[in-house]
Amino acid sequence: MPTTVKAYAATSATEPLTPFEVERRDVGPKDVAIAIEFAGICHSDIHTARSEWGPATYPVVVGHEIAGTVTEVGAEVTKFKVGDRVGVGCMVDSCGHCKNCLAGNEQFCLEGNVGTYNSVGKDGQPTHGGYSQAIVVTEGFVCSIPDGIALDVAAPLLCAGITTYSPLRHWGAGPGKNVAVVGMGGLGHMAVKIAAAMGAEVTVLSQSLKKQEDGLRLGASHYYATSDPDTFEQLKGSFDLIINTVSAQLDFDAYLSLLDVNGAFVNVGLPEDPVSLRMFSVVMGNRSFAGSNIGGIRETQEMLDFCAEHGIGSEVEVIPAEQVNEAYERVLASDVRYRFVIDTSTL
Amino acid sequence: MPTTVKAYAATSATEPLTPFEVERRDVGPKDVAIAIEFAGICHSDIHTARSEWGPATYPVVVGHEIAGTVTEVGAEVTKFKVGDRVGVGCMVDSCGHCKNCLAGNEQFCLEGNVGTYNSVGKDGQPTHGGYSQAIVVTEGFVCSIPDGIALDVAAPLLCAGITTYSPLRHWGAGPGKNVAVVGMGGLGHMAVKIAAAMGAEVTVLSQSLKKQEDGLRLGASHYYATSDPDTFEQLKGSFDLIINTVSAQLDFDAYLSLLDVNGAFVNVGLPEDPVSLRMFSVVMGNRSFAGSNIGGIRETQEMLDFCAEHGIGSEVEVIPAEQVNEAYERVLASDVRYRFVIDTSTL
Repeated sequence: MPTTVKAYAATSATEPLTPFEVERRDVGPKDVAIAIEFAGICHSDIHTARSEWGPATYPVVVGHEIAGTVTEVGAEVTKFKVGDRVGVGCMVDSCGHCKNCLAGNEQFCLEGNVGTYNSVGKDGQPTHGGYSQAIVVTEGFVCSIPDGIALDVAAPLLCAGITTYSPLRHWGAGPGKNVAVVGMGGLGHMAVKIAAAMGAEVTVLSQSLKKQEDGLRLGASHYYATSDPDTFEQLKGSFDLIINTVSAQLDFDAYLSLLDVNGAFVNVGLPEDPVSLRMFSVVMGNRSFAGSNIGGIRETQEMLDFCAEHGIGSEVEVIPAEQVNEAYERVLASDVRYRFVIDTSTL
Repeated sequence: MPTTVKAYAATSATEPLTPFEVERRDVGPKDVAIAIEFAGICHSDIHTARSEWGPATYPVVVGHEIAGTVTEVGAEVTKFKVGDRVGVGCMVDSCGHCKNCLAGNEQFCLEGNVGTYNSVGKDGQPTHGGYSQAIVVTEGFVCSIPDGIALDVAAPLLCAGITTYSPLRHWGAGPGKNVAVVGMGGLGHMAVKIAAAMGAEVTVLSQSLKKQEDGLRLGASHYYATSDPDTFEQLKGSFDLIINTVSAQLDFDAYLSLLDVNGAFVNVGLPEDPVSLRMFSVVMGNRSFAGSNIGGIRETQEMLDFCAEHGIGSEVEVIPAEQVNEAYERVLASDVRYRFVIDTSTL
C-alpha cells in the first residue's frame, strides 16, 4: 500500500515552499524503501522549484542529495537490507538496456532517465525528491553510504560529490597534476577536497580571497582571486586540469590560457546563453573545453567509497525544514559554507 | 659561405609570387643542408603571403611542407648523412630547454619557436621556406623520410600529415573507434587515410557528396553531406572523435551532438572570429571541444614512419613553379585533389 509521508513542496514558481504530504509507492520486488534523514539543497532545486529550467509540474518536492536508512526491501532486492545506510542522487531509474546504461552512464540513458523529482516514473506517476521523510527507489539507483561518513555530510556527495569526482577521475587528477577549481561554493569545495585526496596539487580560483582560509584547510595549496588581473598573468600555462563550477559567463579565453599543453577546462555548470571563445585558445596548447554531467550509479558508489576511505564529507550547515526558504535566498547570495542540508526529522 | 638559391617569393600582400633569390646560411656544426625537391602548398602559405595573419615581412619565401635530399652535414651532425631523404615542416628551431621542448612539443616552445618562414632565426636573419631549391636547418628539426614514401607525396605529410596524425593519436583513433572527418581537403583527406590506417571506422562529413568516391577509396567507410539536415539527425551520438579540418564558422552545437559519450571534437583550423557554442553541448555527454596544433618533431618522425609502414602519402598534383599563383586561386576555390606540390627543379 502506498504510504503518505511529510514533505516540503513548491506549489508554484513564485510561492515559498510549504509543508506538503507526498504519497510513496508500495515497495515492489526490486524496490528499496528509505527513511530519509538528510537532504542537501542544490542550486538545481531552486531552478526547478522556480521553473527557471522550463515549467515545473506543481506541486513538486525537490531534493536530489538524499541520505537515509533502509526500512524495507522488495523480495528480489539483493544489494540492501533493512538498516543499511544509503543515498540517492539525481536519478531514480533508467531504461537499463541502452548502450549508455550498460556502460554505467545512466545519466545519458538514450531513452531518458527518470529524474529524482519533477520527472515521471515508470509507473506513470510524478517523481518527488528528498525534501520528504521517505522515498521508494529501485535498488539499481540506490548507493551504499559507507560507515565512515556521517549521513548529514554524505547527503551532498550524491550530487555535488559525484559532479566533481567524475571529471577529476576522468581527466586524471592525481599525483603530479596541477588542478585548479574555479568557484569555492557547494561544488567547488567538494572539488578541492576530492582533488587533494586524489593527490593532485590544488589551486582555488575564486572571485575574492574571502574563503581562502577554508580553501587551504580543505586541501588547496594555493588560492588566487580572479578579480586580480595579475592572477591570469602569473598562472599562464599552469594547470593540467581546471574544474569550472561556476554557472555563469566567464572570459573563457583567459581561463583556457591557464592550461598547460594538453590541459582540459571542464565545465560542470550550465550558463543559459551560448558561450564564446577563440579557437586559438584551444588549438594553441592542444587544449580542451569540456563538460561533465554528474556521473553514473557505479561511479557514484565508487565516489562514496573513495570519500569514506579519505574521510571526506561535505561542509554542511544543517537546518530545520522551516528554514528552507531562507536558505534558498542565502544560496542565491552565495552565503553558505558550503551546503545546506535539511534535517528531515523537522518536516 | 652562404649560398644563393632560386626561390619564389611574395613581395607584397597583393602582388603575385615571383622568382626570387634567397641566401642560405653556411652549414654550421649542427646543420643539415637540404636540396629541396618538392614543396607542398598549404593554405597557411597563402595567409602569410597575403598578410592575412598579420603583416608579413617581405619579401618572403613561404612553404613548410618540404621534402628533399641531404647535400651537406655539419661536423657535429649525427642523425643524417649526405644523400639521406629528409623533410622539414613548420618549424626550424626552438629554445630546446623549456618544458615543452623537453617534452617534444616544440610547437609550443615557451620562448617561441622559429617558423620555417616569415620568422627570425637564431642568427637574427629572416627565415625563408620551401618554395626554393635548398634550405639549411639544424638537425633537430629535420625528419627522415623513409624509403617507402616518394618525396612528392611525402612533402605534404610535414604539415597536413602531422596536423591530423597528432590529434588522431592523442585521442585514441584505432580499432573499435568511430572517427569522423569534417572537410575533405588537404588536411581532411590525410585524416581519412591516417585514421583508417590506425584501424578506426572512418566517416567523412563534407558539404556535398562530390568527393565521395575519393573518400571511400582513401579509407572512409561512410560519407555524408552536411548540407543534408538528415545527416545530423541520423548520426546523433555516433562518434568517439571528430577531426574538424574546416577553418570556418560551423554550427558547433550540431557537430557536438554527433559525439558519443566522452567524445571529442578536435579543431585543427583557426577561424578568425570567436566561436559560439552552448555549454549544454559539452556538459551533456561529457564531450570535449578541443584543438590541436601540428605536432612536435619526435611525433612528426613517428608519423612519417607510420605513413611509410602503411603506404600512405598525400594525394598530390605536382606543378611547376610558374603555376603557383594559379594554384593559390584553385586552393581558395577548393579545386585541388588534394594538395598542390611544387616541383622545385622548375624554380
